[in-house]
Amino acid sequence: MNETRPQPLDGEAAARVLVAGASGYTGALAAEIIWRHPRLKLVAATSRSDAGKRLNRLYPRYRAPIELTELDLERVEGIDAAIVAYPHGAAAPTVASLREQGILVVDLSADFRLRDPETYARWYGEHGAPDLFGTAVYGLTELYREQLREAKLVATPGCYPTASVLALAPLAEQGLLSEVFVAAMQGTSGYGRSSDDTVHFSAMAENAFPYKTEGHRHRPEIEQELAALGSPAPVTFVPHLLPLDQGELATCFAQLSEPTSKEAIRDLYDRRYAEEPFVHVLDGPPNLRAVRDTNECHVYVTVEERGRVIAFSAIDNIWKGAASQGVQNLNLMLGIEETAGLL
Amino acid sequence: MNETRPQPLDGEAAARVLVAGASGYTGALAAEIIWRHPRLKLVAATSRSDAGKRLNRLYPRYRAPIELTELDLERVEGIDAAIVAYPHGAAAPTVASLREQGILVVDLSADFRLRDPETYARWYGEHGAPDLFGTAVYGLTELYREQLREAKLVATPGCYPTASVLALAPLAEQGLLSEVFVAAMQGTSGYGRSSDDTVHFSAMAENAFPYKTEGHRHRPEIEQELAALGSPAPVTFVPHLLPLDQGELATCFAQLSEPTSKEAIRDLYDRRYAEEPFVHVLDGPPNLRAVRDTNECHVYVTVEERGRVIAFSAIDNIWKGAASQGVQNLNLMLGIEETAGLL
Amino acid sequence: MNETRPQPLDGEAAARVLVAGASGYTGALAAEIIWRHPRLKLVAATSRSDAGKRLNRLYPRYRAPIELTELDLERVEGIDAAIVAYPHGAAAPTVASLREQGILVVDLSADFRLRDPETYARWYGEHGAPDLFGTAVYGLTELYREQLREAKLVATPGCYPTASVLALAPLAEQGLLSEVFVAAMQGTSGYGRSSDDTVHFSAMAENAFPYKTEGHRHRPEIEQELAALGSPAPVTFVPHLLPLDQGELATCFAQLSEPTSKEAIRDLYDRRYAEEPFVHVLDGPPNLRAVRDTNECHVYVTVEERGRVIAFSAIDNIWKGAASQGVQNLNLMLGIEETAGLL
Amino acid sequence: MNETRPQPLDGEAAARVLVAGASGYTGALAAEIIWRHPRLKLVAATSRSDAGKRLNRLYPRYRAPIELTELDLERVEGIDAAIVAYPHGAAAPTVASLREQGILVVDLSADFRLRDPETYARWYGEHGAPDLFGTAVYGLTELYREQLREAKLVATPGCYPTASVLALAPLAEQGLLSEVFVAAMQGTSGYGRSSDDTVHFSAMAENAFPYKTEGHRHRPEIEQELAALGSPAPVTFVPHLLPLDQGELATCFAQLSEPTSKEAIRDLYDRRYAEEPFVHVLDGPPNLRAVRDTNECHVYVTVEERGRVIAFSAIDNIWKGAASQGVQNLNLMLGIEETAGLL
Repeated sequence: MNETRPQPLDGEAAARVLVAGASGYTGALAAEIIWRHPRLKLVAATSRSDAGKRLNRLYPRYRAPIELTELDLERVEGIDAAIVAYPHGAAAPTVASLREQGILVVDLSADFRLRDPETYARWYGEHGAPDLFGTAVYGLTELYREQLREAKLVATPGCYPTASVLALAPLAEQGLLSEVFVAAMQGTSGYGRSSDDTVHFSAMAENAFPYKTEGHRHRPEIEQELAALGSPAPVTFVPHLLPLDQGELATCFAQLSEPTSKEAIRDLYDRRYAEEPFVHVLDGPPNLRAVRDTNECHVYVTVEERGRVIAFSAIDNIWKGAASQGVQNLNLMLGIEETAGLL
Repeated sequence: MNETRPQPLDGEAAARVLVAGASGYTGALAAEIIWRHPRLKLVAATSRSDAGKRLNRLYPRYRAPIELTELDLERVEGIDAAIVAYPHGAAAPTVASLREQGILVVDLSADFRLRDPETYARWYGEHGAPDLFGTAVYGLTELYREQLREAKLVATPGCYPTASVLALAPLAEQGLLSEVFVAAMQGTSGYGRSSDDTVHFSAMAENAFPYKTEGHRHRPEIEQELAALGSPAPVTFVPHLLPLDQGELATCFAQLSEPTSKEAIRDLYDRRYAEEPFVHVLDGPPNLRAVRDTNECHVYVTVEERGRVIAFSAIDNIWKGAASQGVQNLNLMLGIEETAGLL
Repeated sequence: MNETRPQPLDGEAAARVLVAGASGYTGALAAEIIWRHPRLKLVAATSRSDAGKRLNRLYPRYRAPIELTELDLERVEGIDAAIVAYPHGAAAPTVASLREQGILVVDLSADFRLRDPETYARWYGEHGAPDLFGTAVYGLTELYREQLREAKLVATPGCYPTASVLALAPLAEQGLLSEVFVAAMQGTSGYGRSSDDTVHFSAMAENAFPYKTEGHRHRPEIEQELAALGSPAPVTFVPHLLPLDQGELATCFAQLSEPTSKEAIRDLYDRRYAEEPFVHVLDGPPNLRAVRDTNECHVYVTVEERGRVIAFSAIDNIWKGAASQGVQNLNLMLGIEETAGLL
Repeated sequence: MNETRPQPLDGEAAARVLVAGASGYTGALAAEIIWRHPRLKLVAATSRSDAGKRLNRLYPRYRAPIELTELDLERVEGIDAAIVAYPHGAAAPTVASLREQGILVVDLSADFRLRDPETYARWYGEHGAPDLFGTAVYGLTELYREQLREAKLVATPGCYPTASVLALAPLAEQGLLSEVFVAAMQGTSGYGRSSDDTVHFSAMAENAFPYKTEGHRHRPEIEQELAALGSPAPVTFVPHLLPLDQGELATCFAQLSEPTSKEAIRDLYDRRYAEEPFVHVLDGPPNLRAVRDTNECHVYVTVEERGRVIAFSAIDNIWKGAASQGVQNLNLMLGIEETAGLL
């Protein structure tokens, strides 16, 4: 159904795009967004496990009638760009092969996010394409926009780093962060499609819990980015799973390296994000429904009388936290308007 | 935790009970109910897939600290009764072995519910213990109470037949039913623990749908029981899956073989269930929260001006629809008070 | 935020539209859809209770930054069309005033849906604009498309009649329906925004129940339309409330006036809806997620071996069941493409 | 229904108990628990707004058939003890009147929790019974058990202080806390029964958000108790509302005044709570389903490599966070076994 929705003609399309790994939550959404995109043409969406199925059957909320196929890396001629949505570790070799063939790559996995090899080895193990390690631009668009315009390989940030770093960036850029504690919460789409007992509806209904309390791989990524911005602060990070589908909150507690007034901090946030099309500074706490199915990040900051800062952000974990941020970056790489296909 | 809750002393226990297949939703609940039961002693709870785990770890809401073990049918001496919670088809051979050793059996599967071999073959295929086929008492307690007191093998009804037949029994017993249409709805615990994409929280949240629309195995079971009561009416039956954990509604439309007033029908229901400890006739439509985690069935009946009857019932699908009804029957088989352990 | 999204220039807009009663669920959605609509200009959105608030603050998922104002019926010059989203009974006088001033009206209330005054009086009481009673075109687009192109006043159908009649129309048009029983289910947005204990999250979570079991006002509306199509069949109708926000299922049981094969019936459905942009005949049961936030209606029909038909439909109750169907009709009334603003 | 469940005979009952304010979530639950309690007799349950209704009709999950009546403070002879579940501010005068008549009082409101009059005035305003201010025993049972045995007036802690202080008490008692940040999360029952748009199912489904980010009244209560235990640490506290009914998590970040190993801290927790009947130290993060409908508090503590502590706790906010903790304290006041009626 809805299969008559016209794809942009080749003449108008800025690029022909492949989505590799389109059966998981983030890859499927990337394919759907590109299929609806006015300037991109979805040439193929691949999946090993679901080859032969149509995307709009696999995900009834989606409309793209494209049939999933198996990826054949020897037959990617004519492809301009690819979004790779493979699991961590599995992505790197495919990314390497696509790059060798001159294809622009937006990788949604963690394989190219970290820049320190030892940190990578500690949290993820051996790398699948060591020659490419450290060559990607980190795809947190609001921080690396200019580099992204020239990038050939982009590592899309993790969902938690997207939310946490956007909540803290205005402080980090001023070198103000000295201590950071993040309590983050996310819906079950963040757990991935590979179902097990944990995300059975009967297990999650009327439930919520912290997880990976001994250390989550997104912590070093958050620390890397805060340090890159100017605040090499230690970060304590605890994620929680909530009984909802899409959405992610980051509640960030920070102690500052020098006292700063609430007014000064709010002014800092307002100015930092004033021109951003997708980051909005609110005048009260954010909520998940307001960002659902969007590329937006809603930020709110307040300061306690004793000087501690609490910065909040809300995103849709599979949109701004993965797939739509990937497309936002792809737009920049291709010289298309950054917001194309995302409003 | 809570492991100090005392089991009844052997001296007080009426029976030593085994639960076979205690890792699924209904078997686990049966084990929990028996563990809390003042007159029964839970001697063993078995599971192939989860042997070695404690029940209260596998199901955090439960309190029984019993460690699941593998069933060894050669070492069941000292067991008085067993609740078998195996999948359809797998139950029959184990039931047969337990019965051969003189153990009372309450089977929660469908293996012994139907009484017509051809109907069984059509809906379920070959039977795993043909010698026992047709020998079980059908464990809809409110209909077969006297036979259950003498039973050695009880087939616990399906959850949908429990709800549907209790909603319609007062009419069926009078031979009043001529046409029956049932729309039934159930939470995801009815789908079973074996998770797949269907019951992933991200697939069920904000969703609901009919399923098995071409024919559900519970239909012949409902027809068998209505006929046994005196109304061999054709039944159209459609189940729906709802975004909740435990609970089941049956909305039953019926046309009567002879006109009957609303008052007469309501009086019929009131009288039929007046003495039942677990079936309550309400004066308005039932809801799921009121029966959750109970062995109750709430019934409501109304009659349209044009004579059509609508009968409603609500149960907890894994309690009255399976595990607690099994214990209700076990109480009768053992000569214990029917409500013991269930209030 | 997002306030920069451009409205269509006056030069391009086909009409200037007012939404009266934009603080309830359906009026707010109508305002949002019109605000995003490429050919309509949202000139004003009114609300008595929430005047002064912006729509995108009242409903965080919405993007229209329009400030709600109080309706002044003496200052509606320059308005071409209005969507009225008032409660039943309250709508008629406002509709009458707008029509007197030559404004096209799409009414979302029940005030103009019924065509028989006695039926109206029985279910709703005295009418608020008797001169206009019976003059509206019934806005079930797929049934009355040609009349809608000429209509000045359109009565948007109730959500349940939309779902039920679309599920049954192919049979009704052939005069095939003899007996109809509908079990319908809907999320809490159908209960309306005026909150009471019933729809408190703590009351609805893990709950579901039938309601208005003694007669729902949508029943005579369904009967009116099935009769108008050619099948004056008695309809038994029971609605249920489900623990979800948006979505509505109709499960319709029907007995036919003459035996018809499953193939013939499926062919009937396929042909009836083949050209419809928003009604899709599926080859399996529909689900709510697939239609959420869309103007679509998904239909499935099957036939039991004994000849009974089961017809299913799924819609989003506040979209196709109210606001977006209102816009679909407004498009027709204004000579705009029917699908504009709705894909 | 279920009205035959016998109350304990007067001869066996240790006390005759009144619940004042039994129509809200916590008062209703207190009445239900006392009605089921083997040693207490529920003599009356009062409500201004719902007088005349039965408790088991108002809350379908409850079984107490008691009819709510209006409280008449001049007719409370024969009452031994009362649980007062009034809103903050409204409780104090009623508590004072009951105490004057010699009735033991467990107050569930905030009126007597704080011990510093200035702090009370700042967060709550004028006090309704200044003569009694400061005279209550703080009813966090695990901290004040001996004083509770002698208490005439008990102030039941807020739900967030219950969860937060139990999570941190072993550290606070050693004077180890120097900095504390608490991210707490709670279901909609914590919002209270007085419904507004915020907790409409359609607003909370697929939503979550922080609230009272500029300061929640439970913060000074947490600081008061940590200081009383030996750690006068500043506490930053942010509550969040989650899409579930009952349950509360506290995720507490702490910096210690002196380095302490993970082993030492875990040993501290294990020893501190080893004898507690309701507080259980887990070996992994807690979840809400495990404590639902119980008086339990599940605690887990871990220590990061850099020395920061993360302490977690999970409770049912209307049970251990209010009503059942009130009964736990009442048991102590009356000399009954602490766990009576709560297992």
